[in-house]
Amino acid sequence: MKYVFNETKKYDAIAVGRACIDLNAVEYNRPMEDTMTFSKYVGGSPANIAIGMSKLGLNVGFIGKIPDDQHGRFITNYMKNVGVDTSEMIVDTEGHKTGLAFTEIKSPEECSILMYRDQVADLYLQPDEINEAYLKETKALVISGTALAQSPSREAILKAVQLAHKHDVTIVFELDYRPYTWKSTEETAVYYRLVAEQANIVIGTRDEFDMLENQAGGENDATVAALFAHTPDLIVIKHGVEGSYAYAKSGEVFRGKAYMTKVLKTFGAGDSYASAFLYALLKGETIETALKFGSASASIVVSKHSSSEAMPTVAEIEHLIAAQV
Amino acid sequence: MKYVFNETKKYDAIAVGRACIDLNAVEYNRPMEDTMTFSKYVGGSPANIAIGMSKLGLNVGFIGKIPDDQHGRFITNYMKNVGVDTSEMIVDTEGHKTGLAFTEIKSPEECSILMYRDQVADLYLQPDEINEAYLKETKALVISGTALAQSPSREAILKAVQLAHKHDVTIVFELDYRPYTWKSTEETAVYYRLVAEQANIVIGTRDEFDMLENQAGGENDATVAALFAHTPDLIVIKHGVEGSYAYAKSGEVFRGKAYMTKVLKTFGAGDSYASAFLYALLKGETIETALKFGSASASIVVSKHSSSEAMPTVAEIEHLIAAQV
Amino acid sequence: MKYVFNETKKYDAIAVGRACIDLNAVEYNRPMEDTMTFSKYVGGSPANIAIGMSKLGLNVGFIGKIPDDQHGRFITNYMKNVGVDTSEMIVDTEGHKTGLAFTEIKSPEECSILMYRDQVADLYLQPDEINEAYLKETKALVISGTALAQSPSREAILKAVQLAHKHDVTIVFELDYRPYTWKSTEETAVYYRLVAEQANIVIGTRDEFDMLENQAGGENDATVAALFAHTPDLIVIKHGVEGSYAYAKSGEVFRGKAYMTKVLKTFGAGDSYASAFLYALLKGETIETALKFGSASASIVVSKHSSSEAMPTVAEIEHLIAAQV
Amino acid sequence: MKYVFNETKKYDAIAVGRACIDLNAVEYNRPMEDTMTFSKYVGGSPANIAIGMSKLGLNVGFIGKIPDDQHGRFITNYMKNVGVDTSEMIVDTEGHKTGLAFTEIKSPEECSILMYRDQVADLYLQPDEINEAYLKETKALVISGTALAQSPSREAILKAVQLAHKHDVTIVFELDYRPYTWKSTEETAVYYRLVAEQANIVIGTRDEFDMLENQAGGENDATVAALFAHTPDLIVIKHGVEGSYAYAKSGEVFRGKAYMTKVLKTFGAGDSYASAFLYALLKGETIETALKFGSASASIVVSKHSSSEAMPTVAEIEHLIAAQV
Repeated sequence: MKYVFNETKKYDAIAVGRACIDLNAVEYNRPMEDTMTFSKYVGGSPANIAIGMSKLGLNVGFIGKIPDDQHGRFITNYMKNVGVDTSEMIVDTEGHKTGLAFTEIKSPEECSILMYRDQVADLYLQPDEINEAYLKETKALVISGTALAQSPSREAILKAVQLAHKHDVTIVFELDYRPYTWKSTEETAVYYRLVAEQANIVIGTRDEFDMLENQAGGENDATVAALFAHTPDLIVIKHGVEGSYAYAKSGEVFRGKAYMTKVLKTFGAGDSYASAFLYALLKGETIETALKFGSASASIVVSKHSSSEAMPTVAEIEHLIAAQV
Repeated sequence: MKYVFNETKKYDAIAVGRACIDLNAVEYNRPMEDTMTFSKYVGGSPANIAIGMSKLGLNVGFIGKIPDDQHGRFITNYMKNVGVDTSEMIVDTEGHKTGLAFTEIKSPEECSILMYRDQVADLYLQPDEINEAYLKETKALVISGTALAQSPSREAILKAVQLAHKHDVTIVFELDYRPYTWKSTEETAVYYRLVAEQANIVIGTRDEFDMLENQAGGENDATVAALFAHTPDLIVIKHGVEGSYAYAKSGEVFRGKAYMTKVLKTFGAGDSYASAFLYALLKGETIETALKFGSASASIVVSKHSSSEAMPTVAEIEHLIAAQV
Repeated sequence: MKYVFNETKKYDAIAVGRACIDLNAVEYNRPMEDTMTFSKYVGGSPANIAIGMSKLGLNVGFIGKIPDDQHGRFITNYMKNVGVDTSEMIVDTEGHKTGLAFTEIKSPEECSILMYRDQVADLYLQPDEINEAYLKETKALVISGTALAQSPSREAILKAVQLAHKHDVTIVFELDYRPYTWKSTEETAVYYRLVAEQANIVIGTRDEFDMLENQAGGENDATVAALFAHTPDLIVIKHGVEGSYAYAKSGEVFRGKAYMTKVLKTFGAGDSYASAFLYALLKGETIETALKFGSASASIVVSKHSSSEAMPTVAEIEHLIAAQV
Repeated sequence: MKYVFNETKKYDAIAVGRACIDLNAVEYNRPMEDTMTFSKYVGGSPANIAIGMSKLGLNVGFIGKIPDDQHGRFITNYMKNVGVDTSEMIVDTEGHKTGLAFTEIKSPEECSILMYRDQVADLYLQPDEINEAYLKETKALVISGTALAQSPSREAILKAVQLAHKHDVTIVFELDYRPYTWKSTEETAVYYRLVAEQANIVIGTRDEFDMLENQAGGENDATVAALFAHTPDLIVIKHGVEGSYAYAKSGEVFRGKAYMTKVLKTFGAGDSYASAFLYALLKGETIETALKFGSASASIVVSKHSSSEAMPTVAEIEHLIAAQV
């Protein structure tokens, strides 16, 4: 089974939301207190997904907001160099900073992130900064849940959803739940449900769908039934090492397995999954193949030091899939 | 043509949102600088609508938030005395105050309001303060647009919309646009469109529908076509003294005329219109009759000193309708 | 003993800080819930003191900030009409409102105030709005403690203190403690001590001096000893019906008795005390006489309905003093 | 001429204010966009001064606030390891982060800092977190101006000043002006003047004293005359490569020259100057010698990569002084 996009559009995908800086521990397998050097990478879920899709060969654009400083310019330069269209990267004029993520890798199982997200530029994207003429030229609009965490970014995303509907753009909602910035789980659930009901494709972990439902221990069947009563027609629920499930509104269910790898850290798994899954779907592959691409890409990224720089090529993904049939 | 509600519910209508204090000029036909005495009334669009419907004989409830002070207690007492169920009136514990509206009546044509709306209690209603068991027991849920102006009241309303859908409650969205509190017209348009698309009945002036569309000079035909692509099936657009139009999804259009009166001030016209229009609809009257009820009630209230206390009885409305056939 | 001012100045006194609106219960001796009408007066401690001094015949100016609305214009007009120079009344351009005080008079012993002080205009007076050329032309600068409660009004007052020192202007600090707006008693104590140490005359109730010392049950002797180590040379400590004490740095102590009256409410006692006490001092009367003037003026105001409008004339004060020798 | 401290105290000096993280470019002599690796150091003016004094052999304490995270723990550990008493390092419980300074070194003449100072932990030090029993046990209290930039840190410093006066602790005010965080130069001037007038020793660059005076192009003679009218009795004004001047209230003026060095970057010059100048003063050296120590220490630090780790030993300073007689 394949997923049908509006093929008349210029861009394969446009991602919207945060583009930040990751500062990854150069000396790892220890607490961050003992790390004295950090490497700089572009980070942030939608930026990573855009970079990943671009490296796989898709025609990708990005809508975001960055400060007028060295970190902001680094982000735009890096994304441009990997082929992402950054013409809609808005430069903040109010002194907001780029978000930062210092990563701590104590062991492959014990990873954590020290976030700087207070008043960061990406959360100040305004609804009137969403360029309708640009947005309507894409097959898919990729939204990450974190962009809903605060105004005015929240309204910019809600406006992008309204415009995507108007112009027959497929909305992909990557739940991407991060506890910081949100005021309460109640607030999160309201907006997650609101946008999920209006999206076409929804992707998240089981825990993230629980957040959407404001409950613990939800069942996939109930989750997809509730969402299929609205706009969504493809829902991907990830269960970590147990693999992932894709549910089609037609009733079909597909299962993807996880690929084995030597894990360095867990960061970047979700973003690499989404970029390769969407790549395959947009290239006209079946949902089964797309699930393989997502899982394989995730396996590759968790074995490497960064989330963005480590995004694999099609050849690397296909090689891993072939190796672990 | 009649509008069908779910008749198995306990309440005819529950209104949600602000309940405030009006301080009306005792000495009027002058600038407020020269008014030395003010009369106190309950005010705020959804509170006025609830009071109006209750005085007309409906079984009405209210969900709101008031401070733990003399103004808050006055509001609850007053609403209870006119028959509104106030069991879901939440008492604020964080020091927020009741909103205030000082009214200035220079002449029937020159009315203005001096608002106190900074950090008012009603805008602090939380999503987890929406009682699902209560809300599901009403035929109609009446939402006023001002409650969307700020978090967390905004999320409380979005949650109420989600619960109303879940429990087959008819959502009535009174646009009730007030410029204060909103950060931009862009922001207003995003939420007005969002909620209007999910409501069943939408009521507003032509100017308010322009706000929803973030444009000036909109046409009714385009407005109703856009909304009928979503949930709404009845849309009322008011054109002041030229009367109002009700559009049904089935394609029928009904026109209501304005009734002549000796105008004292313009405040309260919209709230009295909504309460009598909904009364008639809920009582099983035709849409044509409901339009007459709305217009007649508005005419009565603009000839009197207050918005809430002046809400008419059924007999008064019927008398005016009969007098101006 | 007399207090010496710099007699070369144009104004007897300039007060700085809040000028607000009092809304006094027309129907009283009941809870405010049952009051349906309110009378409007100018209020706010420094405005009341300025009005009181002006009605007694002093040449008085005022530095403050009011909104560009009907309440703001009423305040300026009223103060101008009683003779206060309002040329330095700054008009706010950022949408801040006038503070409001709804007064509840349940009985002479049970009075309370329902305050509206969120983001009020007077707390937005900026340090660069203090006109040095104006301020240097006064014998006495009257500061009320509430103006220190929040930035930028706090910095405006600190700047006024620095300018007063520079130009040999006597600083009168009326502690005027109000719990709202302040974040903590610790914060209050820091600024009260800071300004009291730099003032020449400090006036307050025993409770207010306890606030300055961030403790309960302080003793007058310790209080004045601590302050006399710095700039102050005259300290007035009020003990309610037990009367008040004036301490001079020279070591002399004067006691003023309270005058009997038929009390209507307690509001306005402190402001009327300060205005008449300062009037007498500025007119070259002895400290003993000034204490009598302060107490008599307070007695007159608590027997009347308002705080500002009720400010007495010299003849009324002298009549009461003569009647209760 | 020597400066006399109260020799009965346990600590030579306690510094109060910010302790942060510097992230210094590993690859430098280029724009930060091209720097891919950063080294982590403790930073922040008062932390650097405390570290510098401790490395020189003084008995030093620190009062500050750090987050409960890896950066916070690194700071405390580092300071403890170099001998600073960190028993009064308060752990923030409200989610505030450590301030960050990314340094860009394009050339020795073109250095800049990308600051993260929004809602940082050090600015949330509360006045009731100043431990009087601890503070009274020091000869000198070192205050940096940046701690005055925002509440509640501002009030904590004002309280520390009041307690220092009470307990005969010498107040050293390092102006340390940084434009971020302050709302206006007017606001800065109010607090700089306020604290400078209450300090005993004031140290700053000529530009910083201009900030205190809210003017450009001030003259040292006027500056010191104005401050000597209040508490200060020793004022150090730095003029960059032209050297620095120390003014004593007694009328004596001392000049210190700048030492030549191979400059790597300009960061850390002021902090190393202050630590060595105060070291010499506290050790009973003459003011002339203290000026040499300050200048020599600054020369050493600007030739190295960090501000804190680079703080020199007494032997290094004495060696440089001897080498450039």
